[in-house]
Parts: sequence; C-alpha cells; structure tokens
Amino acid sequence: MKKFLSTIAILLIVYTLNAQNDDSTFISRIADEILVNGKAYDDLRELTKQIGGRLSGSPQMVKAEQWGLKIFQSLNPDNAWLQECTVPHWVRGGKDEAIAINGRQKKSLDVIALGNSLGSGKTGVAGNVVEVNSFEQLDVIKDIVKGKIVFYNYAFNPKFVKTFQAYSDAVRYRGGGASQAAKYGAVGAIVRSMSESTDNNPHTGSLRYDSAYKKIPAVAIGLKDADWLSTELKKGTISITLKTFGHFFPDTIGHNVIAELRGSQFPNEYIDIGGHLDSWDPGEGAHDDGTGVVQTIEVLRVFKALGYQPKRTIRFVLFANEENGLRGGTKYAEEAGSKGEKHIFALESDEGGFTPRGFSLTGSEEQYQKLKNWQPLLCPYGGCEFETGGGGSDIGPLNRLQKTPVAGYMPDSQRYFDLHHARNDVFEAVNKRELELGAVNIAALIYLVDKYGL
Amino acid sequence: MKKFLSTIAILLIVYTLNAQNDDSTFISRIADEILVNGKAYDDLRELTKQIGGRLSGSPQMVKAEQWGLKIFQSLNPDNAWLQECTVPHWVRGGKDEAIAINGRQKKSLDVIALGNSLGSGKTGVAGNVVEVNSFEQLDVIKDIVKGKIVFYNYAFNPKFVKTFQAYSDAVRYRGGGASQAAKYGAVGAIVRSMSESTDNNPHTGSLRYDSAYKKIPAVAIGLKDADWLSTELKKGTISITLKTFGHFFPDTIGHNVIAELRGSQFPNEYIDIGGHLDSWDPGEGAHDDGTGVVQTIEVLRVFKALGYQPKRTIRFVLFANEENGLRGGTKYAEEAGSKGEKHIFALESDEGGFTPRGFSLTGSEEQYQKLKNWQPLLCPYGGCEFETGGGGSDIGPLNRLQKTPVAGYMPDSQRYFDLHHARNDVFEAVNKRELELGAVNIAALIYLVDKYGL
Repeated sequence: MKKFLSTIAILLIVYTLNAQNDDSTFISRIADEILVNGKAYDDLRELTKQIGGRLSGSPQMVKAEQWGLKIFQSLNPDNAWLQECTVPHWVRGGKDEAIAINGRQKKSLDVIALGNSLGSGKTGVAGNVVEVNSFEQLDVIKDIVKGKIVFYNYAFNPKFVKTFQAYSDAVRYRGGGASQAAKYGAVGAIVRSMSESTDNNPHTGSLRYDSAYKKIPAVAIGLKDADWLSTELKKGTISITLKTFGHFFPDTIGHNVIAELRGSQFPNEYIDIGGHLDSWDPGEGAHDDGTGVVQTIEVLRVFKALGYQPKRTIRFVLFANEENGLRGGTKYAEEAGSKGEKHIFALESDEGGFTPRGFSLTGSEEQYQKLKNWQPLLCPYGGCEFETGGGGSDIGPLNRLQKTPVAGYMPDSQRYFDLHHARNDVFEAVNKRELELGAVNIAALIYLVDKYGL
Repeated sequence: MKKFLSTIAILLIVYTLNAQNDDSTFISRIADEILVNGKAYDDLRELTKQIGGRLSGSPQMVKAEQWGLKIFQSLNPDNAWLQECTVPHWVRGGKDEAIAINGRQKKSLDVIALGNSLGSGKTGVAGNVVEVNSFEQLDVIKDIVKGKIVFYNYAFNPKFVKTFQAYSDAVRYRGGGASQAAKYGAVGAIVRSMSESTDNNPHTGSLRYDSAYKKIPAVAIGLKDADWLSTELKKGTISITLKTFGHFFPDTIGHNVIAELRGSQFPNEYIDIGGHLDSWDPGEGAHDDGTGVVQTIEVLRVFKALGYQPKRTIRFVLFANEENGLRGGTKYAEEAGSKGEKHIFALESDEGGFTPRGFSLTGSEEQYQKLKNWQPLLCPYGGCEFETGGGGSDIGPLNRLQKTPVAGYMPDSQRYFDLHHARNDVFEAVNKRELELGAVNIAALIYLVDKYGL
C-alpha cells in the first residue's frame, strides 16, 4: 500500500511538473506575442489622443464606447455588445479659479473643482482661509469656521511604501471634507491634492456631499500652492475667492462594452477581466484607466492570436462609470445575478499601466493558496507579489452580490499618484513595455484560472 | 543530549528571530529617514541641473568632483578625499551630422557620434549605404562594402523581459561594428541605437577600434530614422554624408571621490558602495549614473543621521571614469591591493534610479545563500529579487584582483534604455520616491553585510 501510495505521489508530482512545463510554455507564447506584436500601446494612443478624457455622460465617452465595441468586434470574439445602464452626468461647467489675497498681493492658485461638487457660479464664494490637518482639528476650531474657507492640508504619508496606502489614508478629506466644513458654516473647501508629486498639478476626484448640509464649492489644490498657502497662513490672514461651475444634468445613458469567448467545457462558469472606460476630465485618462482598458482588449487579442480555446466563458468588460457612480459595475453584477450566471473569478486592472508587481486577491484562503502556487509561472514576467485584500471598484459588486473572488492587477505604485486625476495623466506618461508586461501577467493569470478554476 | 540539542536549536531560532526583528526595525528606521528626510533628489537636481553631463576630462567633471567632495565633507564622515587617476579625454568636438540623399531628396537624420570615435572633420565621409543585421551578414557581402557606409540595423529583441539582456545581445555592433566595417573598406558606420524607445533620440556609448583597421567615423542613429532608412533602402540606393568631430586630447587627471566610515570592530574589513560620477554628454547623466551617485551619498547621510556606527569600514565611492575607460575603478582596486586592504563586499548602483527589484551577486554559492536569507527583510521595500551574476563595471576590478564578492543594485529595467546615453537622460526622468526606495534597499543591504559579514 505504502509503495502504491508513493507511486501515486510520484505520478502526481510528475503530472504537476509536466503541467507546469506546459503552462510555462504557453505563458511564454503569450509573452512573446504581446512583446513582439502587442497592440495595447497603439490602442491607448487612439483612446487618449483621438478621444481624450471621457467623463460618464460626455460626448467623448459615447465615442469611447463605440471605439471599444469596434475594436472588440475586429478581434472576432464569440460575442460583443453594449450593456446599457444609467450614469450620472456631471460637468465641470467652466474654468475653476482660486484667487488668494495676501495683504495687497493677489495670487492665482492652481486648483480644480472636485468631481460631483456644485459650482459657486460666476460671483464665487469668498472668505478667509482656515487651515486644518484633520477632521479632529476642524472640530476643535469649529466655532471660527462660519463664513470661512476650510483648507485641508493633510499630506500623503511618505512612510507608506505602497502609495495606495497613503491615498487610502488621506482621501477622506477629499471625499468628506466639504460637507464636514459646511456643517460648521464654511462657504468653501480646499483640499490638498491626493498626491506626493513634485509638481503643482491639482488632482480632482469624487466628493460625496452629506445631504444634511449645504453643498459648498470644493477644489483640490496643487502641492506647491498648498505649501505656499500654509506658509503664508503662518504669517497672517489670507482670503480666497473660489469660482467653480460644476453641476449635474439628469442621469443619462451609458454602456459597459463587453466581449465574450464562450467556454468549451464549462460555458456556464464565467471569468471576467476588465478596466473602466470612463475617466476624469483634466487629462487623457491614460493610466486611469486607459491602460486597464487596452490591457483587457490585449488579453482578448492574444488569446485569439494564439488560437486559445477557453474551457470557461471569459468576459472582457470595459466598465461605464467607475469614477463618479460605479453604475457600470453595479449593472453588470445585477444582470449577472438576474440571469443566474456563475462568476467564478473577476480581475480588474485599475492601478495604472506601470511595471508589474503582482496581484491582490479577495477570496478564501484556499483560493489565495491556489493563486500563490502559480507564482513561479508569473515571476519571470515581474508579477511576483501575491497579496490579499485587493480587487477593483467595478468588480466589487460581483464580490458583494455573489461572493465572486476578485483580484486587482498590481503594477508598481510609485508613479501613480503623480498623475492620478490630473492634467498630466496623458499617453506620454505610459511606457510601452510596462503596459505590455502588465497585459502578459493578466493574460497568464486568466489562462491559469480558466484552465484550473479557482 | 537530544533534549539539549533541541534547546540549542530553539535558542538559535529565537536568537535568529530576534535578530531579524532588530534588523527589520533598524531597516524600517532607514526607510523612514530616507522617505521623509531624503536628500538624494535634491542632490541629483544640483548634479544634473547645475553641472549637467560630465565626460571624463571635461570641466563639468572637475566641477562634479568638487561638488561630490563638498557634500561628503558636509556629512561629517571619518574621512573624505580625492583619489587621483589618469583618465582619457575624448571630446565630441562639434555637431554630428548625417545627411541622407534619396534620389533628389535630402533628409537630415538624428545621429550622434559614438564615444571614442574619431571624427570625419568638416568635409565628412560620404558613401552609399549597405544595411546588415549581423556581422555574419556583413561577411557575406564583404566584397561590396568598400567605399560604403555600413548600417548595422540589429534591433533590441523585445522577447527579453529584462532589457539588459537585449542590450547585451545587441551592443556588440556599437562596440565593434566600426572596425569590422573598416576591415572590408567601409568609410563609415551607422549603428541602430541601443534602445527600444518609441522616440527618435540617438544613443551614444563607447566603441572600441581594432588597431589593425582604419578608424572610421561611426554614429548611432535614432530608431525612427533607422526604420526610415531601412524602408527606403528597400526601394533604392541611398547615399549618406557623415560629419563627426570626435578626437582625443592627451590623458588627463581625474579623481575618484571617496568618503569613509571607520569600522568599530573590524576596521580592516572594507565594504564599498558606489556609482560613477562621469557620464556621456548628450543628456545630464541623470539615470546613468547620477542616481547611483546620489544614492551612494544618501546611504552615508542616513547612517550618520541614525547615528549608525559600522562594525566594518564602509567606503562610499564616486568613480571617475566608467563610460570610456574604467580608469577610476581600476585605480581604486589597484590601490586597495597595494595597501593590502581586504575588501569583503562591493556594491554598485549603475542600472538607473528606477523602482527597486533586487540585487544580483557575483560570489560563492554560500555568499549567495546568505544574501538570499535577507530577502524577507528587503522585500517590503521592493528589493525582492536576488539573482546571480551581477556586479558593476567600476567594482569589477576589485572582483578580478582580490575576488571580492560584488553585487549590482537592480532597479526595474523597462525604462532604462529609453534614455541611456541619450539627450533625454535628464533629471525630469527620475521619480523621487523610486530613487529614494533604491537608497533604502542599498542602505539596508550594506547594513546587513556590515553587521553579519558575507
């Protein structure tokens, strides 16, 4: 019996090694195809340079949906379609302005209205500035806030090695700062940009108004101007006039853009790979999330180019509305639920198109271990770090509604918040090979999940 | 006895874990100090913007040596000095030109003379162009080469995931192409730039003339112009006039810039960390190797800032002449030998200042395993990959002369050859945090080698 079991064990090991060899060979074919014939960089140039920034509801976003569908169709998947959903339709409405008056001197600050914020209109709002570094500090000085403009100057903590941790730590002031200031009677809010860059570009992004308080104008300010403001406030009073023009039109129609390869053995098991097609408006939405979009398209392209016939049904999804509503991801998960589709794994690329580091999974310990076993297959392409807790905004609803394990593609994070939601998130900031190596790692992982399940 | 041994084993494990905890704590202090108070980025701005490109023998290099010594002295090491050596003194001498004539049309190509090449002078050399993709192909057509200009159009192989492999594979045409062409009577050589970038910047770098053949002019050409030339050559004859002006002045004086912290327990065991201060001239020598220089300085700064008293003597070396002679590294190793210094480890940062990947060691298997055991301590800062076979040009002589184990700091390689030896190797291409994280990993490794030996 013991001998029999040893024989079984040896056979299993041989089988596993052979399987790993086969996988390694196929993944190397994926890599060669993408690194030699990749189209992701050209696709990204089209999306960013011919279409540009694409807020949900904007004409650019309509153009981007048509562009996405056309590329999908050109790759000859088993199916490609637009999935309709309603999306918010916020517009910036004009050129945001902040003029600081410091004694007799005037200085124009580099600011950008936060997404979803309501504008002051042409007359603007004006007030003396009070600087705080936290909500707690705001609570302490709440009695002097009325009629003022609150300046949240909470900086990224440089000690976090991964910049997403610094972002998570700081972003509450962008999200909730305006309403918290309005609660104490402030007339406007200025938030230090969610960045650690060495330039002065302001970084927009969503805020959420608390309906209990007045919806006051709110802007993000570039880091150099934030430092200037803080320094000057130590010397004396500064008043600022803020002019912003944001407003909502009624909700409108948007679309997730979807392509599908039908599974040959388990067609009713779905695997999703996606990025979001919408973006903020100041830049071209290159790293956020043009790169995730073109990597998604590239995975389909490479599977077709290599004649790969998936066992399970693979969906390639360009989501409609990540930045200011999450309506695309929500719609996708709801329809999957209502149709009884079983989604066994979803992966999003929405942390930029930088050089690969790995993947982060939200799933069971067993699923994480299975993923980790594939590490040696991905390491040669840079995707060597496997963490827990990740995912992506657009696939979050799948995880919540049907417990689908979700993963986020994790590129290197050092440069991301230098350009996130800012005017320098443009095509030129993307490196061709870094973008392609991301697609290699994503395609390889999707291949492994398709072959072995998760 | 068995129980006794188990107790010993447990004690050893506890000791090791405690040591690892202590190390992890100290390395985290290194990281915090560098990420919060780091000076490497400011140092680099000075070196690149106030001094700029600095070929050995140039006035800029003299200025850089003084700058380096002054910064070292300001950090209050136990010793800081200039170590004299002779260096070659090659100058570009003028604006390199290549005018292609294609039927009746003229086109100016973006070229740069290779380092160490001798110029054509004002009259230039002219000839019809013959394109080859290898030395083997040149051998085949050797009879038609006389009087022609040989165009080596060997591209980087994109299948190599690490770009240094593609460089190693292609660089023989830059190094030896001119003499090989001259052997068959060519009047000039054009080499496809050692790059895979998406722009047209030409990339210089050393050639080596074979003294048996005529020293013909040689340039590198930008990739877009290389592709244009190749396409046009398929349609018909192209003649090119090359004008270059490179020449040598007599060897001159250069200096390695050195600082030292004396070891408290083993002062006669030396550990070296360095980068090279010289650079090519078209850009600012930012990634090659300004970043290695300022990381070296930063390691000294952080050790002093944390009050770290090394056990062994640590040398911080800014080498005088990596690019076109290696005289600095050679001098350093020779003097170490003649003084009977025992150098137990040397580390160079000369692969750019990009986000950390790890280290590569040339040493014994035992030394490699010791290094690998420290992996968990460095992984949190991105330096997770440990390879064999690496080192650095300037520390190569130490390895050859006294078998010192040598290691190369290994940042991510994807962007390096986009700017290596080209006009875009400027300060703006360096990311502050990537540069700093490099310094964190380097300082951590030097600390571990100092504490435990290698």
